[in-house]
Amino acid sequence: MTELLMPQHANTLGTAFGGQILSWVDIAASICATRHCGTDTVTVSFDDVHFKVPIQVSEVVVIEGRMTSVGRTSMEIEVTVWRETRTAPRQLALVAYATFVSVDESGKPLPVPDLVIDNEADRKRQADALERRRHRLARAKR
Amino acid sequence: MTELLMPQHANTLGTAFGGQILSWVDIAASICATRHCGTDTVTVSFDDVHFKVPIQVSEVVVIEGRMTSVGRTSMEIEVTVWRETRTAPRQLALVAYATFVSVDESGKPLPVPDLVIDNEADRKRQADALERRRHRLARAKR
Amino acid sequence: MTELLMPQHANTLGTAFGGQILSWVDIAASICATRHCGTDTVTVSFDDVHFKVPIQVSEVVVIEGRMTSVGRTSMEIEVTVWRETRTAPRQLALVAYATFVSVDESGKPLPVPDLVIDNEADRKRQADALERRRHRLARAKR
Amino acid sequence: MTELLMPQHANTLGTAFGGQILSWVDIAASICATRHCGTDTVTVSFDDVHFKVPIQVSEVVVIEGRMTSVGRTSMEIEVTVWRETRTAPRQLALVAYATFVSVDESGKPLPVPDLVIDNEADRKRQADALERRRHRLARAKR
Amino acid sequence: MTELLMPQHANTLGTAFGGQILSWVDIAASICATRHCGTDTVTVSFDDVHFKVPIQVSEVVVIEGRMTSVGRTSMEIEVTVWRETRTAPRQLALVAYATFVSVDESGKPLPVPDLVIDNEADRKRQADALERRRHRLARAKR
Amino acid sequence: MTELLMPQHANTLGTAFGGQILSWVDIAASICATRHCGTDTVTVSFDDVHFKVPIQVSEVVVIEGRMTSVGRTSMEIEVTVWRETRTAPRQLALVAYATFVSVDESGKPLPVPDLVIDNEADRKRQADALERRRHRLARAKR
Repeated sequence: MTELLMPQHANTLGTAFGGQILSWVDIAASICATRHCGTDTVTVSFDDVHFKVPIQVSEVVVIEGRMTSVGRTSMEIEVTVWRETRTAPRQLALVAYATFVSVDESGKPLPVPDLVIDNEADRKRQADALERRRHRLARAKR
Repeated sequence: MTELLMPQHANTLGTAFGGQILSWVDIAASICATRHCGTDTVTVSFDDVHFKVPIQVSEVVVIEGRMTSVGRTSMEIEVTVWRETRTAPRQLALVAYATFVSVDESGKPLPVPDLVIDNEADRKRQADALERRRHRLARAKR
Repeated sequence: MTELLMPQHANTLGTAFGGQILSWVDIAASICATRHCGTDTVTVSFDDVHFKVPIQVSEVVVIEGRMTSVGRTSMEIEVTVWRETRTAPRQLALVAYATFVSVDESGKPLPVPDLVIDNEADRKRQADALERRRHRLARAKR
Repeated sequence: MTELLMPQHANTLGTAFGGQILSWVDIAASICATRHCGTDTVTVSFDDVHFKVPIQVSEVVVIEGRMTSVGRTSMEIEVTVWRETRTAPRQLALVAYATFVSVDESGKPLPVPDLVIDNEADRKRQADALERRRHRLARAKR
Repeated sequence: MTELLMPQHANTLGTAFGGQILSWVDIAASICATRHCGTDTVTVSFDDVHFKVPIQVSEVVVIEGRMTSVGRTSMEIEVTVWRETRTAPRQLALVAYATFVSVDESGKPLPVPDLVIDNEADRKRQADALERRRHRLARAKR
Repeated sequence: MTELLMPQHANTLGTAFGGQILSWVDIAASICATRHCGTDTVTVSFDDVHFKVPIQVSEVVVIEGRMTSVGRTSMEIEVTVWRETRTAPRQLALVAYATFVSVDESGKPLPVPDLVIDNEADRKRQADALERRRHRLARAKR
C-alpha cells in the first residue's frame, strides 16, 4: 500500500497527523487479514505502535502488512510504515501490531485457517507474536 | 469530544472502521496534550488499544482524554471511547494509551510542566502509567 | 463536542471556512435533539447565525448545544462555538439557533417529549425561543 | 453550482445532512461575494435558513447565489437550493440569506462596490434585504 | 457546476491535484448523462483529457458538460473546465471526453434516447464524437 | 498501491465512482513519475482510460503504475487497476495512460532522465507509447 502525503493529511508543522497514519495502518492490516481468511474482519486491538520519524508533506508513504500468527478466530498482523523522500534511502517511520478477528455478517467470530510457517524467520516472528499476545491478554484482564 | 457515526465512517457491516476511531482518539489525545503544555505536540506511541464493542451507524461516539503522567518531554494520555445508543446505557467501546511529546516549531522536544497529583485515584493512575512506560521502553529496545 | 481546526478545514487566510463550522453546528444540534427525543431528527431551519471571531488553524473548537424550547414535533437548540487559543481565555466565536423535527423511519414527524423547565434562566431562554419562533413563522409565510 | 448527492453526504434515512447542504450554501455565497468585490471574503452571518424538502441520495442538487444588497463592507446573498429528481419537476429545497464581508489579507474589512439596481424586481429584493438587515442588527444587539 | 479550489484540493505547489479535477469532471459528466437518459449511468471511458493551465488555491473552477453524441446504450459527454481568477478573464483549464452507459439497477445496459441535433455546430460536434469513438474502439481492441 | 473500496467511495449501485478511481490513478502515476525524476510533477493528460469491470464495496483495489517512455520533460505512465474479490482470481478493472511533466518550484518544466530499456517487452511498450504520443499531439492540435 503506497500513499502520497498531501497537505490535507498534515498538521501545521507540515508533518503527518498520527491519526491519518493509523487509518492507513488499520486498512493495510484489514486487507492482510481478509486476504488470509476470506471473510469480513474487525479490529480488536493495537499494540506497540511506535512513531519513529515524522513524515513530511509530498513524501511517499509505503505501508506493509505481514501476518505473524493466528489464534482460533484472531490474527496478529505486523504493520511497518516507510517514509520515502526524494534524496535519502527509505526510512522506517512506524511499527505496529494489530489484532483482527474474522467475523460473519452478523459480527460473530469465525475460525481462521492456520498460518503456514516453513522457515526460521517466520518461526521467530510467530514466537514473538505469541509473547505479545500473552502480555496483551494479561493487561486486558486488569 | 462527541461525534456522530455517519455512513461515511462505517464499513459494509454498518459498524465503525477501526481507523476512523483511531483518528478521533489521536485528535482527542492531541488536544489534551496541547492544553497541558501549551505547545505543538506529536504522537510518539499508542499502547493497549482495545476495541471492546463495535459502534453502529447513527450512534453517538463520546471520546474522553485524561492525562495520566508526564515525563521530561513526554505525556501519557488515557483515551476512553463510549458508545451511546438511543435505548441502552452508555457502553465502553475502546480504551487506549497514547504518548505525545511537546515540540517547538522545528520539531525539537520541549520540557513539559509537571502534572498536579492530589488524590489517591490520580496517584494510582500515574503508577499504572509508569509501569506501562517501563514495558514500552523495554519492548521498544528489542 | 471538541474539534481541532486542521489545515483541511481552513481557507487561504488560515481561518476556518464558514461551511465547516456550520457542519459541526448541525451535528452538535442533531446530537442534542436526538438525545432529547430518542428518534431520528432532521434539520428544519437555522436562524441568527452570527460569526463573531475567526478561528485559526490549530486552535481548539468547542461546540455546545443546549435545548431552549420544544413545540409539538419540533425542538429549538442554541449552539455556541468557542475558540480556544494557547495563550488567551476561551472566546465566543459563533452563536446559532437550529430547529429540528423528530421523525420516524419514513420521515414523518413524531411528537417530542416536553422540556423540563425548573429555573429562571431556562424560563428566560424558552421565552426568547418562542419569540424567535414567532418571527420565523411570520417570515417563512412571506 | 451543481452537486450530486452521494452516499457520503447522507444520513441513515438516505437524505442529505443539513451540515452538508450548509457547506455548499456557504461556498456558493462566498463565490458570489468574491466575484462582486474581487477580494477575499468571510462569512458574517446566516439568517432565515429554511429546509423545505429533504434531498435523497443520487438526486442532483442545484445551488444558486444572487446578491441582494450591499452595505459599506458587507454584502447579503440570497442562496436557493433546488432538488432535481429524475421524474418530477425541479423542487425548491432550501432558501438562506448569507452576509459576507470583504477583507484584505490580514482580515481587515474593505469597502465593496455598489450594486447596480436597474429594475423593479431587484429593487424589491434590495428593500427586503435592508429590512432583514435591520432585524439582524436589532437581534444581534440583545 | 462551480467549485472553489480549497487548500485540501491542492498539492504543495498550491495548484489543483489532477485527481481532484478528474473527480469533478466525472461527476459533471455523470449528471449530464443521467439528465439525458433518466436512469443510473456508469463511466466507461475517458479520452483526450488535456490539462492546459494549472488552477491555484482560492480560484473558482467552472465545470461544464455537454452531450456530443449517443450510441445505442452509450453517451459521449464533452467536459470543459474553466479557471476564474479575480483579475483575468476566464481561462480554459481542461477538456475531456467521457463515455457513459445507461444501466438498470443490476448494472445491465439500457437503450438511451436519441440526441436532438438541429444546428450546424451540434452536427460538427457529433461528427467529431463519432470519429473519436471509431479511434477508441480501434485502440480498445488491440 | 492498494486500497479498500469503502462505502464512501461508492455510488448507490454499490460500485466505485469513476472519479474516485481516477483520483487513485492520478496519485499512483504521480508517485511513479516523481520516483523517476526526483522532482515535483504535474498531470498533463490522460488517454485511453477504459473502465472494464465495476468494483464493488469491500473489494480490494490494486493500482500499479509503470513508466513506458519519456520525452524531454514529459513521462508517460501506464496505470492498471485490478479488482480483488474474496472468491475469484484478480480481475483487470481499468487501464489508463497518464502523461506527467517534471517541474521546478515555480512550475517551469525540467528535463527528465532517460528511461533504461533493456528487454524486448519494454521496447514494445515504449514503441506503443510513442505512437499514442503522436496521436495525442495530433488531436491536441485540432
